[in-house]
Amino acid sequence: MSPATRTFFRSRWVEPPPEFEQLDPAELAPGFRAAGVACGLKGGGETDVGVLACDAEEVSSALALTRNAAAAAPIRVCRQECDAAALRAVAVNSGNANAATGEQGYRDALAMRDAAAEALNVEPRTVAVAETGTIGVPLDIDAVTTGVLEAVQGLSASGGEDFSQAIMTTDSGPKRCAIRAGEVTVSAQAKGAGMIEPGFATMLCFVQTDAVVSDPDKVLRSALADSMERITVDGQMSTNDTVMLQATGASGSVLPKGLLEAVLLQLALEIVADGEGATRVGRAEVTGAKNGDEAERVARAIANSPLVKTALFGRDSNWGRIAQAAGMALAGEELEELGPDRIRAGELASEGAEAELSINLGRGKARAHVYFSDLTHDYIRINAEYTT
Amino acid sequence: MSPATRTFFRSRWVEPPPEFEQLDPAELAPGFRAAGVACGLKGGGETDVGVLACDAEEVSSALALTRNAAAAAPIRVCRQECDAAALRAVAVNSGNANAATGEQGYRDALAMRDAAAEALNVEPRTVAVAETGTIGVPLDIDAVTTGVLEAVQGLSASGGEDFSQAIMTTDSGPKRCAIRAGEVTVSAQAKGAGMIEPGFATMLCFVQTDAVVSDPDKVLRSALADSMERITVDGQMSTNDTVMLQATGASGSVLPKGLLEAVLLQLALEIVADGEGATRVGRAEVTGAKNGDEAERVARAIANSPLVKTALFGRDSNWGRIAQAAGMALAGEELEELGPDRIRAGELASEGAEAELSINLGRGKARAHVYFSDLTHDYIRINAEYTT
Repeated sequence: MSPATRTFFRSRWVEPPPEFEQLDPAELAPGFRAAGVACGLKGGGETDVGVLACDAEEVSSALALTRNAAAAAPIRVCRQECDAAALRAVAVNSGNANAATGEQGYRDALAMRDAAAEALNVEPRTVAVAETGTIGVPLDIDAVTTGVLEAVQGLSASGGEDFSQAIMTTDSGPKRCAIRAGEVTVSAQAKGAGMIEPGFATMLCFVQTDAVVSDPDKVLRSALADSMERITVDGQMSTNDTVMLQATGASGSVLPKGLLEAVLLQLALEIVADGEGATRVGRAEVTGAKNGDEAERVARAIANSPLVKTALFGRDSNWGRIAQAAGMALAGEELEELGPDRIRAGELASEGAEAELSINLGRGKARAHVYFSDLTHDYIRINAEYTT
Repeated sequence: MSPATRTFFRSRWVEPPPEFEQLDPAELAPGFRAAGVACGLKGGGETDVGVLACDAEEVSSALALTRNAAAAAPIRVCRQECDAAALRAVAVNSGNANAATGEQGYRDALAMRDAAAEALNVEPRTVAVAETGTIGVPLDIDAVTTGVLEAVQGLSASGGEDFSQAIMTTDSGPKRCAIRAGEVTVSAQAKGAGMIEPGFATMLCFVQTDAVVSDPDKVLRSALADSMERITVDGQMSTNDTVMLQATGASGSVLPKGLLEAVLLQLALEIVADGEGATRVGRAEVTGAKNGDEAERVARAIANSPLVKTALFGRDSNWGRIAQAAGMALAGEELEELGPDRIRAGELASEGAEAELSINLGRGKARAHVYFSDLTHDYIRINAEYTT
């Protein structure tokens, strides 16, 4: 990689492939083009509509969508009107989540999808749609449709940067990369800062590659399980989460081991680090649990405890709050005393941007970990001053 | 009641008995005496050790204790060494929770209990112990024992005020009352501001009465289900929660219908209103649920959502966040669209100290509600600056 470029894989918790080249993040994997334009949803001339498309007719793809029962219109369109295994393109907008917008919202999401499909001259079922922003506000579908057509006109192999901008909401900056490893290139664009929750990647994330991926759904879900599903900002599952993987297979090579996992974990950690008001990222590890479910439950209770999150912010190695959260997750059970010999919390008090804490339950051999952000004054400011 | 006294039952959500007299809150129900002294646990000469005792030998009592699996030493002493149905007295301290303090902590809690029993000349099994404060710090048992003996010397029928002070931690003021209704008097003292969570009263609360209560455990649990179990500040179950009811029966009368419930609900609401950093109290009501569990799950998800809690603080009638939280609680299920016709959030934007919001799931007839505090800058300040 170029020494002038900031390393993308910068978290100590990410293990990049042994050899890789970091490309200009505006570049997309070969065979993909993208664009982002401004249609007025976010105001101020900000880029808020994007289209990303694959030139190849044959694409191997997978979609992971939020499980929130109040899922937004674009999620329902993706579930009901798209062929998740053969997605050529996606149309996105930020500034409006098109959630809790009723039947009109559904029609609008469908119209947005159809406009993209028509302009791209592809089957409607091969186009996904994703939206993020305010909940409960009717979508200005005319503006969005105009934006979609404009974006299709402007599609470019180096449109990753504009596309990344088009999906941002409260993000402090774009989250994207283009990585070449061996014969294969992977490019990815993500967004997310609030409503980031355990249980599934709460964000938008689009991944493109020219690798051969024969079982994209399995590959995506496996990589998500160790990345987007391991993060929390505010414990809130969004109505609009979407992750999409597209693979053309044009390189003739399979994905190098660990590449997709490293890309998704680094992007997941960037979402946590850019959590609303966040200043630090914590990693809560639970060991000695009876089983995986128990380990997971305790790790999430610690990661979502506002007392632990404020201790991370206040640089306070408050192991008592970790014991309390663990005990709460195991309410009603018998537990050996959780004293300081079982809890490591020292890094909470460190000055580092990443802090590890751990607790050994002493009940078995299962373990789990969750990444989380701190809870700060700016979280309150952002969320209390944001007005619908 | 005296017109000069501030009404104890001041929440619009509490229905007091039709006729009652509000006594000086320092007064205890007939047959009870209490005291609070300073032993240096909190520093600054603050009252931090208290004893409350019943003069009658025959007492009908009940205890409700936290279910946190990392329960503090006093909780384990109460479970293992006390006769919950015949409690004469309780010894309490604030400033140190005696939680996660190992076997020494257990011995200290037992020693504190035994010191009180000996000084009161009653059976050790008839004395409960409760502690609140910092987790994971060894208890200064010599100071506490000295304080307990001093408190026993100072027991007074009007010691309710000092006792209330002795149990305070981050509380902004004491929470207590003495109410006479018909032939019966009920006095109560509570504390709580942080680690207040759904699932059980997360606090200390002591209730005394001269009413005849033949099944105190049932009566207490029923009243708690509609009061202390319906509140949340930060979603965090404490290691030390304790509620104790003592009834002498000396009045020869039973409790007037609704009196205990009104006292506990008002005290519960005072705990929420005094939640760390709190400025307002919300009441989240869920109707139209398939069953009680579902209604409860959705109500708690709304009440514990940091996005809803910051909207309550920011006076933002953000019904989209209510839909999102409800959808998260019902993740993976099919749900009719949760639009503004199903959600009332207008009072979030009001200037009142109490705000109601509601959501109709449209799936059935079950309902539930939860009271919660807002999430504010002061919550962050209090919890980030608090250092272990």
